[in-house]
Amino acid sequence: MRFYCVSLSLCKLQKLLFSDTKILYKPCITSRSFCISVFLSKKHQWGSTKKHRDIKLKSYFESMADPQMEEVLAPLRASVKEQGDLVRKLKAEGAPVLDVKKAVTELNARKKLLEDKELSLAPNVTFDRARMEDLLKRRFFYDQSFAIYGGITGQFDFGPMGCAFKANLLQAWRQFFILEEQMLEVDCSILTPEPVLKASGHVDRFADLMVKDINTGECFRLDHLIKAHLEKIVADKKTTDDIKADCKDIIVKLDGMNKEEMAGVMQKYKMKSPLTGNDLTEPIEFNLMFGTQIGPSGLIKGFLRPETAQGIFVNFKRLLEFNQGRLPFAAAQIGNAFRNEISPRSGLIRVREFTMAEIEHFCDPVDKQHPKFDNVRSTELLLYSACNQMDGKPAEKLSIGDAVDKGLVANATLGYFMARINQFLIKCGVDQKRLRFRQHMANEMAHYAQDCWDAECLTSYGWIECVGCADRSAFDLTQHTQATGIRLAAEKKLAEAKTVDVIEAVPNKGVLGKTFKNDAKIITEALTKLSPNEVETLEKDLENNGSYELVIDDKKFTLTKDMVTGKRYQKTLHVEEIIPSVIEPSFGTYSNPFFQLIFLVYFSGIGRIMYAIFEHNFKMRENDEQRTYLSLPASIAPLKCSVLPLSSNTEFTPFVKTLSVALTKVDVSHKVDDSSGSIGRRYARTDEIAIPYGITIDFDTLKEPHSVTLRERDSMGQVRIPLNEIAGVVHNLSYSKQTWNDVENKYPKFEQQESKGV
Amino acid sequence: MRFYCVSLSLCKLQKLLFSDTKILYKPCITSRSFCISVFLSKKHQWGSTKKHRDIKLKSYFESMADPQMEEVLAPLRASVKEQGDLVRKLKAEGAPVLDVKKAVTELNARKKLLEDKELSLAPNVTFDRARMEDLLKRRFFYDQSFAIYGGITGQFDFGPMGCAFKANLLQAWRQFFILEEQMLEVDCSILTPEPVLKASGHVDRFADLMVKDINTGECFRLDHLIKAHLEKIVADKKTTDDIKADCKDIIVKLDGMNKEEMAGVMQKYKMKSPLTGNDLTEPIEFNLMFGTQIGPSGLIKGFLRPETAQGIFVNFKRLLEFNQGRLPFAAAQIGNAFRNEISPRSGLIRVREFTMAEIEHFCDPVDKQHPKFDNVRSTELLLYSACNQMDGKPAEKLSIGDAVDKGLVANATLGYFMARINQFLIKCGVDQKRLRFRQHMANEMAHYAQDCWDAECLTSYGWIECVGCADRSAFDLTQHTQATGIRLAAEKKLAEAKTVDVIEAVPNKGVLGKTFKNDAKIITEALTKLSPNEVETLEKDLENNGSYELVIDDKKFTLTKDMVTGKRYQKTLHVEEIIPSVIEPSFGTYSNPFFQLIFLVYFSGIGRIMYAIFEHNFKMRENDEQRTYLSLPASIAPLKCSVLPLSSNTEFTPFVKTLSVALTKVDVSHKVDDSSGSIGRRYARTDEIAIPYGITIDFDTLKEPHSVTLRERDSMGQVRIPLNEIAGVVHNLSYSKQTWNDVENKYPKFEQQESKGV
Repeated sequence: MRFYCVSLSLCKLQKLLFSDTKILYKPCITSRSFCISVFLSKKHQWGSTKKHRDIKLKSYFESMADPQMEEVLAPLRASVKEQGDLVRKLKAEGAPVLDVKKAVTELNARKKLLEDKELSLAPNVTFDRARMEDLLKRRFFYDQSFAIYGGITGQFDFGPMGCAFKANLLQAWRQFFILEEQMLEVDCSILTPEPVLKASGHVDRFADLMVKDINTGECFRLDHLIKAHLEKIVADKKTTDDIKADCKDIIVKLDGMNKEEMAGVMQKYKMKSPLTGNDLTEPIEFNLMFGTQIGPSGLIKGFLRPETAQGIFVNFKRLLEFNQGRLPFAAAQIGNAFRNEISPRSGLIRVREFTMAEIEHFCDPVDKQHPKFDNVRSTELLLYSACNQMDGKPAEKLSIGDAVDKGLVANATLGYFMARINQFLIKCGVDQKRLRFRQHMANEMAHYAQDCWDAECLTSYGWIECVGCADRSAFDLTQHTQATGIRLAAEKKLAEAKTVDVIEAVPNKGVLGKTFKNDAKIITEALTKLSPNEVETLEKDLENNGSYELVIDDKKFTLTKDMVTGKRYQKTLHVEEIIPSVIEPSFGTYSNPFFQLIFLVYFSGIGRIMYAIFEHNFKMRENDEQRTYLSLPASIAPLKCSVLPLSSNTEFTPFVKTLSVALTKVDVSHKVDDSSGSIGRRYARTDEIAIPYGITIDFDTLKEPHSVTLRERDSMGQVRIPLNEIAGVVHNLSYSKQTWNDVENKYPKFEQQESKGV
Repeated sequence: MRFYCVSLSLCKLQKLLFSDTKILYKPCITSRSFCISVFLSKKHQWGSTKKHRDIKLKSYFESMADPQMEEVLAPLRASVKEQGDLVRKLKAEGAPVLDVKKAVTELNARKKLLEDKELSLAPNVTFDRARMEDLLKRRFFYDQSFAIYGGITGQFDFGPMGCAFKANLLQAWRQFFILEEQMLEVDCSILTPEPVLKASGHVDRFADLMVKDINTGECFRLDHLIKAHLEKIVADKKTTDDIKADCKDIIVKLDGMNKEEMAGVMQKYKMKSPLTGNDLTEPIEFNLMFGTQIGPSGLIKGFLRPETAQGIFVNFKRLLEFNQGRLPFAAAQIGNAFRNEISPRSGLIRVREFTMAEIEHFCDPVDKQHPKFDNVRSTELLLYSACNQMDGKPAEKLSIGDAVDKGLVANATLGYFMARINQFLIKCGVDQKRLRFRQHMANEMAHYAQDCWDAECLTSYGWIECVGCADRSAFDLTQHTQATGIRLAAEKKLAEAKTVDVIEAVPNKGVLGKTFKNDAKIITEALTKLSPNEVETLEKDLENNGSYELVIDDKKFTLTKDMVTGKRYQKTLHVEEIIPSVIEPSFGTYSNPFFQLIFLVYFSGIGRIMYAIFEHNFKMRENDEQRTYLSLPASIAPLKCSVLPLSSNTEFTPFVKTLSVALTKVDVSHKVDDSSGSIGRRYARTDEIAIPYGITIDFDTLKEPHSVTLRERDSMGQVRIPLNEIAGVVHNLSYSKQTWNDVENKYPKFEQQESKGV
């Protein structure tokens, strides 16, 4: 019996759950990310069944306008809208929290049914995930880490092709965001002391309760275990209505329960390990961050950072200073982050450690215009607004200019980044038809967030969230200011100087010193920190009672009129202090903790984007399904070019060498494949690793004027090019300075058939 | 009282040690790295004294041929040679290990005296380290991590300029090594399970013993503490000769002592905390790797990797397969590594986490030629051979071709990488005159290493090791093969087929099964794994005694003739299995554990190379020491260009925008500085952050034909260039396609004086 996490639609899961197989359905909220964990008995292991290998991908939006399909969907849409309206009504009436929660749970279930139906109705496009994964492993794009030592679930190594693809993707990101927008890039420590992550909320929010099987040590997330157990009871026909009601009630309340309450539920319903029937331990608190000790003393507790953003926030003052005190500015960081998932899915992009790329754009909270917004105003995005989600309506195409003007997207800066994210993903190979921006609904958004949109890609796992784009208001800077006492704020020049009333408590240090001796200093400090309201109270108390009681850390000090007085005066201000708002585009984001949809997001970090790009670019040759290839854009393809001598004839050798030197000189990464095997077979091999261009050296190359064949991967078109021009042509093609069309128009076509090889 | 690690020459340290200040001299062996740790009373804190701010850097090699200097050095050289000869003699005679160790210790002390003298005699070049560090912090190249939370020693964040410099350096490295040599780049997990690091030797070798002050919790490395304590006793005039001899003896033996023996020494000499006089705890084992738990169960112990190399070794089989089974090939990895140093120096490049870039070149152990060696054959390196070190002779300039031909450098592949390392470092801004390759002496080289050379840079800390280049033989692959049972080997085609005699034990499964039931399987397995010698023994035993005793995990099985027989036959082999040798160029290396010199290596990872580049490029303007700048090569400078409108006149704005777009289009990173302040002042500011080129937009720009001024940082020369040509020119300059000389020759000089600014 093993522990698996797989993607299943809700209904499939429910079918399995109540079938006779030993399955435990565990929709789980991994802090800000969500997953469905399933225990499967051996005969149902995914990946070993035919069913899994033939998952069909539905092309979603090509059929969006199909009236027949809309007819089928209409009742489901109506059902979502009915529930959405109920949620709105309850909120408007200020109904009890529990009632709202129940209604939202039901709304999410109906949304999920609608989405599943939509996907199932779309015309089929066969997508063979197992074959793609086989290709990616066989050609070592990535594979499990430490496999010779048995491997660790949730850890992956990128091989030469995966690593080059990743490096190119990150370099493209740096070029597209950091250099083009002149952002301030930083590279901060991974090891983070506890207080920093306490302030950011991760120490508390990233904690889950788990229980262990007392014999096998197997770990379970407690909330998931309880939920699954109670749902089973509810589904049992023998259960009385009273107990059913109690179970349903607990399921809704589960989210807010503490350790003791959950332990109580476990006892009440006599819960055992669903795998072995063994007893379970008491609930254990488990933080999803990797803990360690910094330094030898064991006194400095630290964590591996769970995201890169905090490094930017704690450096805010230095960055502001670097930017000469001016707002707005954006800082960015590319780097690794870590999460000790309780049950990372095996077989995909790494999930326990991953690379993120995050931007924090700091701006004036009352002015979120963006100077370059007009450049992107007409960019069309597929927007799936919170409102449409509540109303059971589909996503809509809209220009970002219109979306901001209508107030659908909260502000121009957020809109600017959404458009740029859209441009970047498409440039890197994401299929435009399988990309949408989904707005967070009120219930899934953090309390401090103003607005939040996730760029989601449609894959064989369904829609997976790849990039988050949120207006986080002043939350993060405020938290770190509170924790450190160091004001992470900026100065804003006032349009005109402002005169303000100031009220202060002025201590009489001499008298205080005589009266309170050593305590005088803390009293003086406390007095200068009093708020205007407190100073007014002080004045009143002194006036009315002749004394004022100051409390410092539970200690009381009685102050009299000779010790302190209130002072009022006017001050002219030319600047005001503001805590900037933060707009955060986060590549490799994770779902919000309040996100209530059951939704698979197993790939972490930019690995998720890489995965979506792989799926969108995994293709089969027409008429030959055995020949698969990856149509990655040249700019991010691991290698730009292959060099293939027709045979092992030694006369070709000097040409291979010369060509390799020439390509290196113009920064074209390439692979010489002088192995045996027909040209067709070697082309197929280079197609598999996404090499967009192939240069063949043949017997005609030996003749003057020397020339070679250049082949393009996707069209398999070939042209004949003079040897001394080829490096420049491939350079131009690789760096988008020339298109394949240009090349085909300029050079003679080469007609020889591509043989399938030996 | 605080704990400091600083760089001091041996003699200075000894002076301090016996002066009346409270100083504890602790030369410490941090596994493969070395440092000198010093406790200083408050008034002697480094960094706060004038002395520290005015460390003078001696330009070493300019004076190498100076005969007067050689006269002074002659007796020191003779003294080194005398001791070197003694060491050789003792080794040749097979003298007791302890005697050799003593002689080597003395040799190292004499070498250090010679090197200090050499450095002190070289002509002075004033280098103000504090001023450079001030610049680097003020302009946020780097600074302490989490400073608003009080900061953590040994952790640093790179700000925008440091981060861009680092990213450019790594990109240059990728271009220079990976792309140009077509290496296989990988990106492997940081979290590493314990067995991997057990096999690599890190679990054992990275362990240190420490003791803590029982009251303050302050930690001390035990071996350093003992050494310092005993040296004090030896230096005390009141100590009897017997005790002196005992102390000296212990100091020499210290290296090989275990926990109990060291605890014994502590007790015998009643050692207390040198800072407080408090009692100390029992010795505690402390591993320099950061430990953590992978997964929730707490059962998988892991570490943050202490180097990137292991990720390559454990993927050897996949990489060999990717390379179609052929040798030689090189794999490379750029990534973070971590060491939980007991006492990282504060105030410099991060030391607890750092980025490394490592190459593992796998080749046939009997053929270490390199196909491109002839390309570098004439490259001249400054080589400081082990032999010259023993003989008290200086380093010598030699072409790498000669060095390999003479056998000074063990093989051509090692030589090839040394030449490439030399080229790369110089290209990135290391001063050729302050770069040498020092060969490891026999006593400092790991037992498995064939040859090892460190690229060392001369800085104000002395010579610091920046890149290691070692022939590690088959050590690493052998270790992982032994640990996993998976043969990490390659097949080598034999020049001609070879017939070999084979001898095997052939089990009779039927009889074994009947006799041993469940154990039959492991017996069969054990029999097939017997070595030829063991099979011969088996044959003899069966012949002579009628039975053979097979031992498996302490269990004995008596086998008789009917159960197993020996079989002999001949086999024709076309390939042989070889375990490849590994040549490892490691950027961000650390000293070898056997390295006995007292030598400061605080900067970790490529941070060390960055530091050397900073020092070699920190300059002052002639006649104006207040104006300092960093002369980083354009290719790795954080930004390539500044755009400076002469004043805030709005007529300049459209030109600034156009220029910025044009520069972005040709990949020229740049900074617009439209702040107030004279042009001269803004130039000075951009000089500080190493921007090599500055474009000024002035009133002449407004006139047609539009033109701008281009200024070069190092020469401060200026030319006038048409607006529509400027982006192309700066692109060519930034990517080494044109020199400043070319530009000066082509365009008219701009003569206006650079004012010093307001």
